[in-house]
Amino acid sequence: MTTFWCEQAWIDDRPQAGVRLEVHDGHFRSVLTGVSPRRGDTLLPGLTLPGFANAHSHTFHRALRGLSGTGSSFWAWREHMYRVAGALTPDSLYELARLSYREMLAAGYTTVGEFHYVHAHPDGTPYADRNAMGSALIAAAADAGIRITLLDTLYLSAGFGAPLEPAQARFDDRDVDAWIARVSRMRDTPGCRIGAAAHSIRAVSPAAAGRLAAWCRAEGRPIHVHLSEQPQENEQCVAALGTTPAQALADVGFWGADTTAVHATHLTGDDIALLGAAHATVAVCPSTEADLADGIPALPELQHAGAAIALGSDQNVLSDGLREAQSLETSLRLSRGTRENLAPAELVTALTRSGQHSLGWDDATGLRAGALADFVTLHLTGLRTAGCALTELPRVATADDLTSIHVGGVDRTPDTPGAIAAELDALCRRLRGEDHAPREEDRDD
Amino acid sequence: MTTFWCEQAWIDDRPQAGVRLEVHDGHFRSVLTGVSPRRGDTLLPGLTLPGFANAHSHTFHRALRGLSGTGSSFWAWREHMYRVAGALTPDSLYELARLSYREMLAAGYTTVGEFHYVHAHPDGTPYADRNAMGSALIAAAADAGIRITLLDTLYLSAGFGAPLEPAQARFDDRDVDAWIARVSRMRDTPGCRIGAAAHSIRAVSPAAAGRLAAWCRAEGRPIHVHLSEQPQENEQCVAALGTTPAQALADVGFWGADTTAVHATHLTGDDIALLGAAHATVAVCPSTEADLADGIPALPELQHAGAAIALGSDQNVLSDGLREAQSLETSLRLSRGTRENLAPAELVTALTRSGQHSLGWDDATGLRAGALADFVTLHLTGLRTAGCALTELPRVATADDLTSIHVGGVDRTPDTPGAIAAELDALCRRLRGEDHAPREEDRDD
Repeated sequence: MTTFWCEQAWIDDRPQAGVRLEVHDGHFRSVLTGVSPRRGDTLLPGLTLPGFANAHSHTFHRALRGLSGTGSSFWAWREHMYRVAGALTPDSLYELARLSYREMLAAGYTTVGEFHYVHAHPDGTPYADRNAMGSALIAAAADAGIRITLLDTLYLSAGFGAPLEPAQARFDDRDVDAWIARVSRMRDTPGCRIGAAAHSIRAVSPAAAGRLAAWCRAEGRPIHVHLSEQPQENEQCVAALGTTPAQALADVGFWGADTTAVHATHLTGDDIALLGAAHATVAVCPSTEADLADGIPALPELQHAGAAIALGSDQNVLSDGLREAQSLETSLRLSRGTRENLAPAELVTALTRSGQHSLGWDDATGLRAGALADFVTLHLTGLRTAGCALTELPRVATADDLTSIHVGGVDRTPDTPGAIAAELDALCRRLRGEDHAPREEDRDD
Repeated sequence: MTTFWCEQAWIDDRPQAGVRLEVHDGHFRSVLTGVSPRRGDTLLPGLTLPGFANAHSHTFHRALRGLSGTGSSFWAWREHMYRVAGALTPDSLYELARLSYREMLAAGYTTVGEFHYVHAHPDGTPYADRNAMGSALIAAAADAGIRITLLDTLYLSAGFGAPLEPAQARFDDRDVDAWIARVSRMRDTPGCRIGAAAHSIRAVSPAAAGRLAAWCRAEGRPIHVHLSEQPQENEQCVAALGTTPAQALADVGFWGADTTAVHATHLTGDDIALLGAAHATVAVCPSTEADLADGIPALPELQHAGAAIALGSDQNVLSDGLREAQSLETSLRLSRGTRENLAPAELVTALTRSGQHSLGWDDATGLRAGALADFVTLHLTGLRTAGCALTELPRVATADDLTSIHVGGVDRTPDTPGAIAAELDALCRRLRGEDHAPREEDRDD
């Protein structure tokens, strides 16, 4: 048994002082508040929180960070993206994911939901092991030390029945039965759960999405879908199906407490009521949605209707769960002109309990006896947080204030961030087809 | 003479490789690009940028960081603010400013514009030295090692001629002549320039603002004013004066290339044209404007009309110039649904050249021979920026990626951030009237 003593820990939606965590076999055996440290405890000065969940990640987009600015247009970015997607092999995907997952761990994410749709060779030929790419992601997570939910994604159409484009051949599963046959071969492990996603109402028909959801529900697997990120998707859906994406999915029984709508940026009032009544989760991806100029979802209304809010890093322009959570509130303040939207405790819930639930880790949702021993610690001795009220810390601290990260009671704090950064830097440039790092090329010496 | 060799340096709006900086008597004697390091050079690996300007700071608000969340309402925050403002003495203001300025230096700000209006004893009685409070700020800047422009602020009315409220008695200068007499006693030094501000059109009549501007212009001093932060100010101004704040100030000849409008959140098209034609600067304070739910200024239109954009930390909920700059673009993307607003080089210009100009430091506006040797260096070996294009670095890096800060060629990188944080933490709690730090109070040991 390992024991930890936390100066402060986030329990029952607030910081509590003097908390002793007993960990056995990867789980909390007991959690005691208001106690003093004992000899042999690992001391955790600062504020300890449950591990963060990254509810929506396309890890391979990490290779494109810093290529999405105004200087390079969206279309230049998309060319880079297709080049990277086309270059991926199971080996390079493993390497990119392993390094990116270490970066996520450093940012306090102890679980990642990988929305994974690059299944086959670039020309669409299946790998000998049809799950070679998904297995690469699972191995990367295991080697990095992060929990993963592989949201194996069904992707059948370029848009409302249109055949896939050549660049999308890698995503193809032919039909939902072939997808079920393939996904059935994967098994949960202590660090990995197999979930599923219908890519979007553009890429999957309502009938196929409904069948996917029914199969997942019978298997007890979490279900995700990209929903209404752009107004164009809504317009095309109304034109093709006569209804909104949320309604089209409701009509096939898609929504439930086990489903997560990713983005949900442009919903109607009826859509909000549907997601709320089903107690679905909405996975918001603030840094990506800002980068792509998507817009700001109606979070207070969704929450009031009964939906939960989770957070995702999506294209990984940022690895910082706290800053993502803070963006929820600042965007609402700027767009609505009101200060009272989401309280700091609601931001923590989004980052922890709701995200873990969305990914099928209800056993990793808090510092309580019986739960998985996943926790992160913020120091209270940094300049950024000097003078701050503890309850407001989630609105001020960033990933740079994290001093330790534990998964299943094991210390997963990256101890060589510089080495990870150097490997990641070289790999990103190689995947983008840059033979030399530009700063080497340009140097005159 | 001291010499530095930069792996990369931001010159002529882009990164250039292999840059040698020769510094003599606090100024760059030469700046050579495309060269190799020589024996004796101080090596600066990474990307070196001109020092950042914080064009708008109310430093004493730093004591309120982490008290502005949804949990504590605006009114609760305002009570804290009045308590802190009332408790300030020249000594405690000096201490708070010295520590806050060190935090700003750590964030890459090499110049701060202090919008300063707490001049007298709490009951309005002048200090024996009528500039005791301003002098405390100047001494704090000197001891911290940051350049300061003291924007000594005229504050005469609680709103369009209404007498000051008791809590505002400390701000009072009686009239503009008394203000000129007081401010005339202060002198520029190598690290300090005396500028001026009319607090706002609410607190200063157009006639007094015009007289202040004319006096400053004759003296060559920069002039600032809070402008149209809230729609309410505009409505009250139209009711009282029959015109917008920008127009009322234009009518007395206020605007010019030496004036800065702070916030400028809610402008009419005519207001934008006025500021643009005058080549005025707009000092945007993204973290504060988000915190206060103010809204997003029309930056592309202001820039297109001829205005410059600078950045301020205002109430100091954040000390991170890069994140402030990045917020400009993300807010525009979210509110306008378009990706092409401000390019990374424009963000750097706001943070450096335009901000320094706004504060009267046109001699600190770039890495060029003859300029003041103020520069900051971002490492390129961190996880956050791994794989990034150099040109996009200003959109990705944060203050946590800064590895060194030089002012006048002197290394001002805070070497004991933990000690500064501990002092700042204790001082903030003392100024708020908390006898004990809450985390000590609550602990059971």
